[in-house]
Order: sequence, then C-alpha cells, then structure tokens
Amino acid sequence: MPRTDPIALRRPVIGRRLRLGFVGGGRGGLVGQWHAAGARLSNQWEIVAGALSSDPETAAQSARDWLIPAERSFADWREMARNEAARPDGIDAVAICTPNHTHHDIAAGFLRAGIDVICDKPLTTTLDDAEHLVALQAETEARLYVSYPYTHHAMARQAAEMIRDGAIGRIRQVHVEYLQEWATGPADPAHKGQVWRMDPTKAGRSSAVGDIGTHAFHLLEYVTGLRARALKADFHVCGVEKALEDTAFITLRLDGDVPGLLHVTQAAPGQYCGLRFRIWGERGGLSWDHEFLEQLRHSPLDAPDQIIHRGQGAGMRPGAAGMAHLPRGLGEAVSDAWANLYSEIALSIAARRHGLALEEGAIAAWDVQDGARGVRFVETCADSHEAGGTWHDL
Amino acid sequence: MPRTDPIALRRPVIGRRLRLGFVGGGRGGLVGQWHAAGARLSNQWEIVAGALSSDPETAAQSARDWLIPAERSFADWREMARNEAARPDGIDAVAICTPNHTHHDIAAGFLRAGIDVICDKPLTTTLDDAEHLVALQAETEARLYVSYPYTHHAMARQAAEMIRDGAIGRIRQVHVEYLQEWATGPADPAHKGQVWRMDPTKAGRSSAVGDIGTHAFHLLEYVTGLRARALKADFHVCGVEKALEDTAFITLRLDGDVPGLLHVTQAAPGQYCGLRFRIWGERGGLSWDHEFLEQLRHSPLDAPDQIIHRGQGAGMRPGAAGMAHLPRGLGEAVSDAWANLYSEIALSIAARRHGLALEEGAIAAWDVQDGARGVRFVETCADSHEAGGTWHDL
Amino acid sequence: MPRTDPIALRRPVIGRRLRLGFVGGGRGGLVGQWHAAGARLSNQWEIVAGALSSDPETAAQSARDWLIPAERSFADWREMARNEAARPDGIDAVAICTPNHTHHDIAAGFLRAGIDVICDKPLTTTLDDAEHLVALQAETEARLYVSYPYTHHAMARQAAEMIRDGAIGRIRQVHVEYLQEWATGPADPAHKGQVWRMDPTKAGRSSAVGDIGTHAFHLLEYVTGLRARALKADFHVCGVEKALEDTAFITLRLDGDVPGLLHVTQAAPGQYCGLRFRIWGERGGLSWDHEFLEQLRHSPLDAPDQIIHRGQGAGMRPGAAGMAHLPRGLGEAVSDAWANLYSEIALSIAARRHGLALEEGAIAAWDVQDGARGVRFVETCADSHEAGGTWHDL
Amino acid sequence: MPRTDPIALRRPVIGRRLRLGFVGGGRGGLVGQWHAAGARLSNQWEIVAGALSSDPETAAQSARDWLIPAERSFADWREMARNEAARPDGIDAVAICTPNHTHHDIAAGFLRAGIDVICDKPLTTTLDDAEHLVALQAETEARLYVSYPYTHHAMARQAAEMIRDGAIGRIRQVHVEYLQEWATGPADPAHKGQVWRMDPTKAGRSSAVGDIGTHAFHLLEYVTGLRARALKADFHVCGVEKALEDTAFITLRLDGDVPGLLHVTQAAPGQYCGLRFRIWGERGGLSWDHEFLEQLRHSPLDAPDQIIHRGQGAGMRPGAAGMAHLPRGLGEAVSDAWANLYSEIALSIAARRHGLALEEGAIAAWDVQDGARGVRFVETCADSHEAGGTWHDL
Repeated sequence: MPRTDPIALRRPVIGRRLRLGFVGGGRGGLVGQWHAAGARLSNQWEIVAGALSSDPETAAQSARDWLIPAERSFADWREMARNEAARPDGIDAVAICTPNHTHHDIAAGFLRAGIDVICDKPLTTTLDDAEHLVALQAETEARLYVSYPYTHHAMARQAAEMIRDGAIGRIRQVHVEYLQEWATGPADPAHKGQVWRMDPTKAGRSSAVGDIGTHAFHLLEYVTGLRARALKADFHVCGVEKALEDTAFITLRLDGDVPGLLHVTQAAPGQYCGLRFRIWGERGGLSWDHEFLEQLRHSPLDAPDQIIHRGQGAGMRPGAAGMAHLPRGLGEAVSDAWANLYSEIALSIAARRHGLALEEGAIAAWDVQDGARGVRFVETCADSHEAGGTWHDL
Repeated sequence: MPRTDPIALRRPVIGRRLRLGFVGGGRGGLVGQWHAAGARLSNQWEIVAGALSSDPETAAQSARDWLIPAERSFADWREMARNEAARPDGIDAVAICTPNHTHHDIAAGFLRAGIDVICDKPLTTTLDDAEHLVALQAETEARLYVSYPYTHHAMARQAAEMIRDGAIGRIRQVHVEYLQEWATGPADPAHKGQVWRMDPTKAGRSSAVGDIGTHAFHLLEYVTGLRARALKADFHVCGVEKALEDTAFITLRLDGDVPGLLHVTQAAPGQYCGLRFRIWGERGGLSWDHEFLEQLRHSPLDAPDQIIHRGQGAGMRPGAAGMAHLPRGLGEAVSDAWANLYSEIALSIAARRHGLALEEGAIAAWDVQDGARGVRFVETCADSHEAGGTWHDL
Repeated sequence: MPRTDPIALRRPVIGRRLRLGFVGGGRGGLVGQWHAAGARLSNQWEIVAGALSSDPETAAQSARDWLIPAERSFADWREMARNEAARPDGIDAVAICTPNHTHHDIAAGFLRAGIDVICDKPLTTTLDDAEHLVALQAETEARLYVSYPYTHHAMARQAAEMIRDGAIGRIRQVHVEYLQEWATGPADPAHKGQVWRMDPTKAGRSSAVGDIGTHAFHLLEYVTGLRARALKADFHVCGVEKALEDTAFITLRLDGDVPGLLHVTQAAPGQYCGLRFRIWGERGGLSWDHEFLEQLRHSPLDAPDQIIHRGQGAGMRPGAAGMAHLPRGLGEAVSDAWANLYSEIALSIAARRHGLALEEGAIAAWDVQDGARGVRFVETCADSHEAGGTWHDL
Repeated sequence: MPRTDPIALRRPVIGRRLRLGFVGGGRGGLVGQWHAAGARLSNQWEIVAGALSSDPETAAQSARDWLIPAERSFADWREMARNEAARPDGIDAVAICTPNHTHHDIAAGFLRAGIDVICDKPLTTTLDDAEHLVALQAETEARLYVSYPYTHHAMARQAAEMIRDGAIGRIRQVHVEYLQEWATGPADPAHKGQVWRMDPTKAGRSSAVGDIGTHAFHLLEYVTGLRARALKADFHVCGVEKALEDTAFITLRLDGDVPGLLHVTQAAPGQYCGLRFRIWGERGGLSWDHEFLEQLRHSPLDAPDQIIHRGQGAGMRPGAAGMAHLPRGLGEAVSDAWANLYSEIALSIAARRHGLALEEGAIAAWDVQDGARGVRFVETCADSHEAGGTWHDL
C-alpha cells in the first residue's frame, strides 16, 4: 500500500466497500456512534446489517435510523450471525458494541460463523473467556480485531515512530493517565453505558481500569514499544459510592526495568477524556494530550521544545504523515482516528482475504492477542489490589 | 427536527440518503476531500456521480477511487448535468469543488438542469456573475447553497447563540483574522490549488481575501449578527513575489458604528489555518481559535474567564449542543463541521422538497445571497485598495 | 561589563548603590510601585528622597512607608530638586511617576539641577514639550532616561537578537497589540490613574495610544530594528463614553515598506495587559505574549515550531541569557524586567559618570530622543485620526 | 495588619528594615540569589552581614558584590554568629543557604546566639538533627523559620482559601508532581548545587525527594489542609547513574483516607520546575502549574472551567488578593513569592518581638516543626523504599 498519500487510506482497494454489521450501537448507546462514524468516514465500509439492541423495538427503530433493510435487522445476534453467514452478500465483519460481559459469547458466535469480528475493548470480563477466544480464533478462518482507537491518532503514531528512530534515546521513565469526571456524582440512568460500567455483573472485576485503563495501557505499550512485566495497583472510590473502583493508581515495571506510572479515574471534575502520556528518555522527552490531539511536544535535551503539528512535512514521520488526511491546521480528531482504525482493519482484511500486499508495519490492526493482553492487565490489577497493592507479574 | 439529540443530525430523514454528485474533487485536489468527508460522515448522502476532473483519465481514476459507477463518471460537467437530470435516480445535488473562475458556469448549468448546487466559496470571481446566479436561482426550482464550513463548528454556533442571548451585552469592537503560511515561499507546482489561487485569471481580483477573507468575513457577520456597512482595505504581498495580494489589512464599520479589524495573510510562517475571532461587548468578551476549536473563551466583565468546552451541558446553548455528536473530551474537528454542513443542507432540501418541518433557526444553510455577499466583500476590498485604502460602502 | 553572568546585573559596580529620589509614587498610585520594585530588586539603587505626592500629608505618610528620612521628603518637587542638588550625598537620579501633563516641568527642573531623570512614558503631552526637553538635555550635564520596561524582558531581548542574527530572514509583516479591559465601564474614582488617563487636560490628545500605544510602538521598533515611516490611525470609544479614545486601529509603514498593524484598546473584557507581537519574515516567524512572558515562539518555515524558554542555554542568545537571573522554570516577570531596566540605567550612569566600560550594545537605556519619538507617534496618530484616518509621515 | 492593601506587605512596620545576614549565598551558588531577591523586593530587610562562602576569598568577593562591609563579612559562620550577637545593631535573622548536611550545626549555632534563623529546606539530613532543632528552639528566645516558597505564591494561597471555603467540596483525590530535567545527564561540575545534591554525605538519604519532594509535599498539605498519615515510595534512577535516586513515585494516604499521588523526578527532559497540583473534590477540581503561575483553574462540576487570574477582584479570595502586589496582567513570579515569604517572616518577627498585632491566619511563616515534618517525610520515603515500597506511617 502506498502510504505516501494519506488520501489513499480512504480508497476502497478491492473494488467495493466491505460490508459491516453491528451488534449493539442502537439508540441510547454511544460507543456504536463512533464505530459507525469511523466506518463511514473511512469510505471503506458500508453498514448493512445489525442487531442494534436487545430490545426489538429499539433494534428496529435504530435500523431505520441507519437505513439498514428490515430483513437484515435483528433483535437476536445469533439469528443475525446465522443469516449473514448464509447470504452470498453477507457481512465481511461485525462490530460488537455491547456491554463487556456479552463480548465473549457474541464474538465466539461470529467467529464460529466464519465472520470477522471487530470487538470493543475490554475483550472480555474474564481471562478465561479471553483465552478461549484466542484458542477459538486459531480454529477458524475468521479473525478477531480489537478496537483501541487511540493508537490510530496520527500523533500517537508519530510518537511511536520517533521513539523507534531514536529521537529521545533509550526510554527511562513513563507517565500515562486517563482522567474523566462522569462518575463523580450518581450515574445518569438515561445513560446506559454509565449504569452498566458500574455493575460488577456486566463490567467485570473493574470499572475504571477495564474501561479506560486498558486504553491507557495499550497506548503506552504501543508508543514505547516496551512491554510491562509486572505491576502493582491500588483501587479507590473517589466519586459517589459504588461497587467497583472509579480510580486506580498503578505502578509498572516495563522492559529493562523502566518504571511507569499509570493513573486512571472517572471522578476528576474538569477532566473529560484526559488521556495523556509523557515519555522521558536519555536524550529527550515526548508528551501528548488527547484533548489537544493535533500536537506532539518533543523536548530534546539541551534544545528548545518543539511542537510537532499533525500534517505533511515539518518533522512528521512517514507513517504518521500517511495518516494525515487533512492539511495541517484543518483539525482532525476522534472520528478521523476511528476512520483510520476502520481503514486499517479493511486493509488487513483485504490483505488476508483478497491478497492485497501491505508493507511490513504499514498498518496497526489489533488482534485477539492484544485484546487478551488488555484483559490480563485488568485481572492483574485487580489481583494486585486485592493482595494489598503488591507486585504481580503480567 | 428535534435538535435536542445531536445524533439525530446524522439520521436520514426521508427514508434514503440524498444522492450527491461532484464537479472537481478528483486526485490532486484537496477541497473535494473535505466535502466528501462531510457528506460521508453526515450519513445523509451517498456520492453516486462525478465529473471529478477535466482530465478524462484523472476523472475515471478518481471515480474508481470513490466507487462511482463508470456510467455516472464524466469528463465534462455539462454531460453530467444532462444525464443526471434525465435519470429517475439522478443526483439530488452537485458539489462544485473547482477553481473559482469556473463556479459561475457550472452552477448556472446545474441550476438550469433543476439540480441543487452546493458551491465552494467564493461563489464567483465577479459580482456580475454572482448577481446573475441570484437572478437565475429565482427563475428555477433548484437552490444554490454556498459552503462556509466555519459556521458549522459547534463552538462558533455557541458564540452566536451567546451573543443573541446577551451574554456579552451590546457588541462594541471585533477582531477577526485568518492567517496561513503556504504562500511565504513559491507555490508547490504539485499542489494545483496553490497555483490557481495565485493566478488572476482563475482566482479573480484577489487571492487571500477571496480565499480566506470571505471565510473570516462570513463567520464574523454570522457570529455577531451584525452586517458590515463600509470597509477600507490595503493589500500587500508579504511572501514571495506574486500577481495577487497574499495579505490584507481591512477595517470594517459594522451596524451601529461598531469598529472591526479583519486581517488575512497567506504568508505568516507558523500559521496553518489560524482563523480566530475576538468579540468584545459592554459586559464581556468571547474568543475562539480554529486551531483549538473545542473551546470557546467567555470573559465576563468582573468575573473569571470561562472556558466552555464543546459537549452537552456545562454552559452549552441548545443549538450548539444539538451539534455535539461526540461527548465532551472526545474531540470533534473539521470533518465534523463538514458533516454538520452537509446534514444541514440535507435537512434544508428535505424541508423544501419533501415537506420536513424544521424549527425556525434550527439549521444554517447558506444560500446564493450569502454567496453573492462574499463576492461583494471581495470586490469592495479590491476597490478600496485600488483607491488607496479609502472607505467604501458595502 | 561581563554579561555572561546574569547575576552580575545585580552587583553594584561603583562600590555603592546609586541614590534615587521619586516624584510621585506615593499611596494611591501604582506606577511608582513598579519603579520602586525594580530599583530594589536590581540591588543597584537605594531610595532616599521623594516628593511622593502633591498632598503634603500623603507625601509624608508615603515617605514613612518607604523609610525616607523626613528631611528628604517634600511636598513640592522644586524644593526637592533644590535640596538634593545642594547635598553632597544628593540623589543620582529622580524617577518621575506623575500624570503625563506634569512630566515636562518636573523633568526640566531636575535636568537644570544637574540631576539625571528617569521619566515614565509618554515623555510629555505635546511634541513641543518633548522637543524642548531634547534641547534642554543638550545644554546640561544630566541625562534623561525614559522607562519602556517591555524591552527589558529577557524574551523581548531574545526576539531582537534573533532578528538581528537572521533567524527569520527579512521581515515582511508585523502585528502588535496591547489590549486591556479597565475602561470598559466607568473609571474607578479611587484609582487616580484611571481618572487622569481619561482627562484630556492631563493625558494629552490621547488616552489609549499615549498610555499603551507608546509601549507597543516602542517595543515593535526595538524588536524589529525597523523604524515606522508613516502611519494612519482611527480612534474609537468602545467602552463607556469618554472624552478621549479608548481604542485605536493603526496601520504602519515600516522601513522597506513592511506593513504593520498596531491595535490598542482599554475596553476589551478579559484582556488585562495583553501586549503581544507577531513578526513574520521570509524564513520564519516569532511571537511573544506578555501574559506568558517566559516563552518565545519561533516558527521556522518548514520545521516544527520551537518554544524557547527563558534561561541559560537551549537556544537563548547571549544578551538575553545575560538577563536571565533565575534558572529556566523559576519564573521571572514584571519586577524582573523593571530590575533589568534599573540595572541598565545604573550601568549607563556608571559608564557616563564613573568611567565604567560597557560593551557596545550590552544594555538598553532609552533616552530623551526615544521619549520624544513616542510623543511624536502619539501626535501623528491623533493628527491622522482627525484627518479621517489618512497616511501621515512620522 | 490590614491585608486589604497588598502594597502594605512591602511597608516596613517597625520604623526600620530588619537586618539580615547570610550563611552561604556567595558567588557560584543559586539558592542565595533568590533569598536575597526576596529580601530586597520585600522592602522589609537589608542585608548587612554574611559568611557567604567557606572559601575566604569567595566570601570576601561576594560580600563586596552585595556591599556588605568588610567587618561584617566572615569566612566562618561561628565567628559571624558571635560578632553579630554582640553588636547593638546585630542582625535580626540569618538566612542559611548552604548544602543540606550543614544546616543543623549552623541553625543550632545561631539559635544559641539568640538570632532568628531562616533555613532553606530540607531542614536537616536526619530526623534526629531535626528533632534536636525542635528541642533547641524550645530552649531559646530565637525562632527558626523554614523557607517553603511555593506556599507564598498568590495562586497557591488562593487555592488553599477556596478549599477552606468549600469551593470544591470534600477533597477526594490529589495529584502533585515536581519534575525537573537537570539530572538527566552528568552533573555540571561548575554548578555546585548539582554536585552536592547527588552526594549522600551532603544531601542525606535522598536527592530528589529531599530537594523537590519536600516542596511538593509541603505545598500539598498546605493547600489541601489535609495531613498525610501514611505513604509508600519507590525510588528510581532515571537519569545518568548516581548514588541517590533522581526519581520517586510516592503514594499517600491523607486524612479521611484520601488517596494521593506524588511524583518527583530530576530526569525528565523538557521539565524545568514543573511543580503542579490537581485536587479533585466532590463538587469540583482545582489545578495549578508553577510554570504558568498566574492562573488557577477551577473546574466546578457541571459548569464551565474558570480561569482565575492573579490580581484584585474577579474571584480572588481576600488573603490571596492581599498578596497581589501588581495588577492582573502585570505578571508576578518567583521573586514576588520570595518577597512575600520575607515579608511574612518580617511580620511574624515584628509581631513576636515588637508587639505588632496580626490577624489570625493573615500570614504563613513556616517554623521548625514544619521543617521537621519535611525531614520526616524524606526519611519515611527512604524507609518505605528500602522495605520494598510498603506502607509506612508518617
């Protein structure tokens, strides 16, 4: 794929758009909105089928919202998997945008039906479930992708490339945080995602760590190229009283004994989606703030700070420049990252199923192993917390 | 339209997506990319026909890029207008993304064919041409819309609403600027838009004022709700030598003798798309910077500055909140503004052609009169400059 | 003077501190506070005499505040000039911190008494008065310095040095503004400086231009190294009704026909001391904001922006580094600039009167000619405004 | 003390300036520079004696720099203590600006001589030494003050007052960091402070925690009004190899089980004096960044963020407003904080020794107990680290 031209990312490469179905994503949900936005903006996909809600009426209404034909709208995802697998023009992949505890069964169902899966994170609520999906994928033709959208932001890619090419030397210390405010007060009953994220039967052993900690953790490992080998975690409730933690302080030991701090909270007033990393090496530092996402700050030791702005030229590395659809100054943001995610998955599918040749490292499409690693991270944090905040291997 | 739910903006309201054609927008062009991104992200349109380039090979290749069927891809826009007008499933509207000097003829051709037009600004290169389009529209069933995307940013809408509801009192002074850097050095021959914008036979009597001054001017009048009654302008060449100005200093006299400064340049290194307004009233100020577009600064006199962040709640006015597709902290940017633009035009067409009821003021869809006003602004600036920078009525 | 060590700026070089007197500066005034702060922080001066108010009681009380001995505290500056000139340990210089219309007589009085003068800007309220002081100084041993503190900020000095050494190439365009909010509503009667600045009998033909326009103008000419050759100005009242302008839009023609915009207002809510310059050259841009005064933004064409932070090393030029008393990160601000100003005047006096050798260009100590130029700028703006905003030579 | 008028802070209240001596602070040192700057700018002190270096030649040269008479310049602080105690016009207090390991003996010597002490932090290198000073002070007339300058910044005071008056409700979570870069590479031998801070025989059991951790810890307890009851700490070396830690990750348990994160490093390229706190309560958040020290961000839950800018009015609380010497927009910074510190100590001495009446809570002058608490913090961190990062009571 010629990645010199970012517009190429939005050109269907197999002579048609890939066909996408949704499980979840109907009225009242949020996560499905950004999956759909990314799929549409990518110009690589068309949304043609869905089990958009477990409530039949909402499912039908939501399908009409998205112009999904009635015969491809379902209240039950099992029926959808069966029907789509049987159609000659069945979906190429399904996006799973449902509460965490349902991911495993739905993903397994579609994999068994031979349909590729794009599953929101965390992959599952237990490590057993995650490992089962790893094993299951190995037995099928289909592939499971996990959506970690922050790694599809151009300036996160830029940071990763700069670290690979030695811009800051050997990494010595990292700090990453993801701070939100929504769980400071009581959950809004109209906002279903807030309700189930606080419910241990649906969210798993963790709320904040599973929801946003997995993002921060995955972004950190991706950008640094280092793996965390051990961690210790303390969970706290800093907002309104609730059954699961809304806050966690996590210390990491990365490859080469590099220390890391990871801080997540859903109870910090004034913080919306405050995902930020700061990475310090022996020759410089890099920092990025998801709320000012067009800029990456590079602090070479003994030279002035540089503000690298997304676009073509002026310090951009090739891979990141290849994601810069709009010129510098015409801002890209979250929908663009999701479009990159859906484009890269489309290219991965095209390569795998249709023989499209891709350069090594040209795209980032996270797989079931990456999803399972996120679950392992959540479980290890919960284990450490329960043991009083002691070191646990990862 | 229930504008309490921003997701509603991205729901087709007439049971199908509107059909969109393009003139221009093929490989090598940029403007067409963001028109297309907005149309796709809006979920209100599908792109089905095009005369994407005047070069037949580029036109055909570009059509394949966008999955436009060969029989609806044309090298000549006249042929496209004729064919589409004749089809039962012909396009609902055409987007014109060609150099300025071609707008008039293309727009006139499609209007005469009964097809709605979405024309990039400036509408034409002469006021006569613009007035001709005004007259022509009056004789046809079709309607011409002009794309001024900055007014479709949620926080620009927020500023307009705050001014209407008196948040800063009577306006007393305004400053608006649009600063870019690309014309500091020689034009890049590979970048066709740079080349024709510097060519008086294609750009008209102005480069910077026509290209970015019209944006700044339209945004200023929209946000303040005031009309400029007179202006004086000085044109300068501050980058590499060229036939048209790359910089202009413009002084405005708005309704009620409110003074305004408008500064545009394409030759300011470090400025990418630096569109910014600052509006000061008797009780407060408002400022917005397109490069940090999620935030509006409100400075009430005698109270701390407030940073209003795009999203639901926390100071957002209803119309602007109704445009906030993603939650606060998950950034929206330029593609989202274009999606809003294409959604609002879709709603306007649905209202006009399909009887959809819209609340007064619910949407902003700029028409041929707004386009002609932009051309008048350019002409008046050029007249003033040529007269030595003297006051000219607008 | 060895300017490699910034701490040297705060070492008295003639074996004692210079003796300073004040006219004005007593309780109720503000300007005297920062003159005094700079003198004290510089460690080059001691304040030993004063006619701190024209009200005898306030004068006496204010002298006690500052530990000025009763016998060197005066209600009448003429008496002070006479007495100090007669003492063997009389003051080396007098700081004049009174309303504009009194500057001329006081400055003339002290010059005639052979005492150096440090006069706040604008030097006088009429050009005749300013030229009289120029002539008078030529006849005396004493020298008149004018306080333009913004040129004594390290990062303004840094910008000047970078421009001299070609960092942005030939200058092509400049924008400078000084925005305040205090005259939006009625003057505060308790704040004497607000009252007299609005009174034509005390402020001269201008309020905003004389008060803050002179600062912006002087800073612009200093940093760019260019002289304005002509200007046009429009005066406005944008705050509460008043006799003098609170706002001015000024267009400049600098050496080499470089265009410049200068905007001043005292009626912009949310703006405190918003002095900012942006200078664009053929190879880059420089911008500085007095409200974030530790940083200078350098935008080289075709490279990422650089944020140069005050301190030693990391891009700092020698003269500016020589002013950096505190290490990078330990912030300097307005009192530090005034300390630099008082240090540089002390060095100038030491050079002139005590034979201290100074390197060419090592310091910036503005003289009566610089003061007169500021008055000429104010007068020319007023002339242009009265003539309808036409070009006037400067 | 009438704290409505901030200028009053810079008025000597006992009819003379207090007399200050220095131990340390001569050429080649930095810490003494800001003590001296604060003392001078406060207008409450004059520097009249010193043992400015243990090297006699440097001591004498440095005394000449500061215009200290030769008979009050000493190479040995013991001699200075003896002589000053014997003079009728002896110093009122001594500022100790020497390496950590010398603080105890010098402080004890001056206390025994009946002279008040202003000691840089950390108070001592061992807790025994600190407790000895506590006991010693109780036996003498003199008092020991510790310099924690960050609590003398107006906006840190503002945060403390806002928390006291309930602006953010009950505190639920805190984050504080102090990040520097200077120990990333090898120490600069010319910079004595860098060398001894890395030397366990001079710095004590800690480098980063003792040097900057004590600042962060004191500021946190002061602003929140909460005391840390337990902590756990991990020390790291993230810069060049060295004997003491340059980085520490510390978790705190504050009153009411409020969790806190404290992060310090001297090895983060691009960080100069990055002291920042973020405090989140049940109804809002507060954040402050020492590198943008004029602004405090207040994030009320469910309302837009407010940017409170140092000055009079517009959200400022009385105590903080009483420290705002310059008007909003004319920046204050580090020298102003040190001036506040020296003013507040002067007022404390005036109250204690000269009967000046002070309102409860009008000033903050930290005493030997506050110093000992800082040493206890350092020791507890070192103990925790050595025990493998386990919880230790404080």
